[in-house]
Amino acid sequence: MSEILRDLSSDISLLSLNTATVRQQWNLAEAIEGCVRHNIGSITPWRDQVAECGLDEAAKRIRNAGLTVTSLCRGGWFPAADREGRQTAIDDNLRAIDEAVTLDAACLVMVVGALPKGSKDIEDARSQVFDGMTAIMDHARASNMPLAIEPLHPMYAADRACVNTMKQALDLCDELGDGIGVVADVYHIWWDPELAGQIARAGNDDRLLVYHVCDWLVPTNDLFLDRGMMGDGIIDLKSIRAMVESAGYPGSCEVEIFSQDWWKRDPDEVLRICIERHQTVV
Amino acid sequence: MSEILRDLSSDISLLSLNTATVRQQWNLAEAIEGCVRHNIGSITPWRDQVAECGLDEAAKRIRNAGLTVTSLCRGGWFPAADREGRQTAIDDNLRAIDEAVTLDAACLVMVVGALPKGSKDIEDARSQVFDGMTAIMDHARASNMPLAIEPLHPMYAADRACVNTMKQALDLCDELGDGIGVVADVYHIWWDPELAGQIARAGNDDRLLVYHVCDWLVPTNDLFLDRGMMGDGIIDLKSIRAMVESAGYPGSCEVEIFSQDWWKRDPDEVLRICIERHQTVV
Repeated sequence: MSEILRDLSSDISLLSLNTATVRQQWNLAEAIEGCVRHNIGSITPWRDQVAECGLDEAAKRIRNAGLTVTSLCRGGWFPAADREGRQTAIDDNLRAIDEAVTLDAACLVMVVGALPKGSKDIEDARSQVFDGMTAIMDHARASNMPLAIEPLHPMYAADRACVNTMKQALDLCDELGDGIGVVADVYHIWWDPELAGQIARAGNDDRLLVYHVCDWLVPTNDLFLDRGMMGDGIIDLKSIRAMVESAGYPGSCEVEIFSQDWWKRDPDEVLRICIERHQTVV
Repeated sequence: MSEILRDLSSDISLLSLNTATVRQQWNLAEAIEGCVRHNIGSITPWRDQVAECGLDEAAKRIRNAGLTVTSLCRGGWFPAADREGRQTAIDDNLRAIDEAVTLDAACLVMVVGALPKGSKDIEDARSQVFDGMTAIMDHARASNMPLAIEPLHPMYAADRACVNTMKQALDLCDELGDGIGVVADVYHIWWDPELAGQIARAGNDDRLLVYHVCDWLVPTNDLFLDRGMMGDGIIDLKSIRAMVESAGYPGSCEVEIFSQDWWKRDPDEVLRICIERHQTVV
């Protein structure tokens, strides 16, 4: 396996910081400065932070810092209880594509959304996701902005995303055509018995757009805010990276950790530890 | 869909009580008395409660109460860090089969186990599950005791069960041969994009042995102990029961709720509500 893996031990050119990792400590401007201070060359900002900073100002700061934007988080959230809600989501996604273009992001990450309030119909939610994606594909293609569907762990199927496996996400991509791919986030997919085959499929079809790392803690004390730092949990990170790289993925390993614990730490310490783990266990 | 569904509105002959639902309030003898008091005709006891009561005494009490034992919970937990641990698990499962026979249970539920301490190798855990199941199949068949593999939600893949979808469980059954089937528990499987097809497959192959109901709450505040009462969450229970009954499942709807909230309630009230929900929303 080692001959397949790229050697991360001596540099950090493949490390990208998803700003969610330090979002309770730093705003976007501070996260950009943190990346520069730690020689991290790539960043994935979140739209709410970009809006707070101002879109053009955010683009300028990122450009001046010399950072690559590996993706923008995030579009999606299509299902809604009524037609007006669905149109509002579509309009917002069209804006998200434009923001991603302004930021020169490599792609726009899509967390597709789940059950509207009061609904128990996950098939309907999935159908709404297909319709919503269909409604924005032309604009994404015309903007040369790839969309990256992130299948979320099945424990988020009710309230965050009703696309829950790599296979399901890739089937959706096949229905939608070109200009679209997937995010492979180890937290969401590590358990999947079909993981190796579906990652290979994603690579074959040129749909592997983003690779996210963190870890699954045992025990996990919160469904949302208890992700682990790479190496602190039970995910076999190197095996999954070997699958991803064997599938031809050329991009970064993007650190995205939602964690009440890590959000309490000194953010410079968090970045130092991210770098150390990137070079040893990712 | 309504013509497929059996009518539960006016009786409770298809309601089974999994004693986990009231395990903090009642020991096994009390749960048996509770079933009798509420005219519930079927029960699924847990092995630790049976052991506490005494196996023969438990069998006698259940028999004298006229209860059907829809299953015994539970065997499994095969993966271990060393050969001795694996053999201990196999020996324990052989005893579990004998206990299920003594209790005249319709089957033995298998929660297969997950990563041994220190391991990150889920494929190895899955391989150990196959080996462990293989080691006990002859005794199960000779004892006419069907084994029912329960695929658990992927959020338990690290610490409870590395079999996480119906498809994976049914593939495992196909490898192991006859005398084995699955538990369909709505909590674990409701999110699965392949659910309808896999339930149909289970029915076709005569592998649908147990059907568990509860509900998925939004939000879910604990990975293990925050299951909902039927009707309080977002699972489309009647749709899943329609799949199960269309697949030919003739058995009970077994209530299994692990919940710090429901464990604080008066257990007679819990049973009354289980019955009311069984007749209205299950």
